[in-house]
Amino acid sequence: MQQARVDQFLEQVKASIPLVNHMGLHRITFENSEVCFQVSLAPNLNDKGTGFGGSISGLCTLAGWALTTLILIEQDLERSAVVKTGTIDFTAPVTSDFIVRCYCPEKDGADVLIEQVNAKGRGRLPIVAEILQDEKLAVRYAGDYVALDR
Amino acid sequence: MQQARVDQFLEQVKASIPLVNHMGLHRITFENSEVCFQVSLAPNLNDKGTGFGGSISGLCTLAGWALTTLILIEQDLERSAVVKTGTIDFTAPVTSDFIVRCYCPEKDGADVLIEQVNAKGRGRLPIVAEILQDEKLAVRYAGDYVALDR
Repeated sequence: MQQARVDQFLEQVKASIPLVNHMGLHRITFENSEVCFQVSLAPNLNDKGTGFGGSISGLCTLAGWALTTLILIEQDLERSAVVKTGTIDFTAPVTSDFIVRCYCPEKDGADVLIEQVNAKGRGRLPIVAEILQDEKLAVRYAGDYVALDR
Repeated sequence: MQQARVDQFLEQVKASIPLVNHMGLHRITFENSEVCFQVSLAPNLNDKGTGFGGSISGLCTLAGWALTTLILIEQDLERSAVVKTGTIDFTAPVTSDFIVRCYCPEKDGADVLIEQVNAKGRGRLPIVAEILQDEKLAVRYAGDYVALDR
């Protein structure tokens, strides 16, 4: 997908989900069924001067939704996507601006989603999102998303 | 704990965690080892006009941290609390202003936390947070928190 279309997607997200305007999310990329969020730490600080767990949970939840939605937009199959479940593990503090990398843990995850939506109008996508700090895993999130007919 | 002290806690949270100022959290109550967040829907809307999963994940994450911290403040044992893991299930859309109710699923959870902190300077608290809509469960979150020496 062209970056201009992804930039437009981010603008649409900010226009329709007010909280996203306060989460330091300044760029989304989408390539090879993988979404990256580039995020500033400052608006996501906690009382200890590191990444606020509530911000990070929210950004990971959003990243899975963005991945589901962008995979469908790429195929002209846009549907209403919703999160069903998510599990997050915090293993180290987030101490600088960061990237949320979100991908399909199953190699054919995007293809299965597209086949399901084509066949039944709805489909399911398992996703994983990760944040690294100094090349070590700081946060891992796994979620399940559903694409539904509007 | 007196409501004035809980109100002061909310002001301290808003002063030290910038995102909380944008999440519609206007009142916290704390009684019998249970925290309730009173939340406005408007700042937490998604593109479908219902509760944004990222806001709800963030508020549940914060509620567990608030419960852990308030249990310790009540005993003059304030420590630095952090979230370790959380799992959230979305079973119905959130369609109006809502309450996040957060409690200890184990009856002696608060007592065990206090004993651990007194004995070792650190302790662990499992928590559950729920959001009801029209008396039905819409969101359930279970998390694990740790209180650490500063």
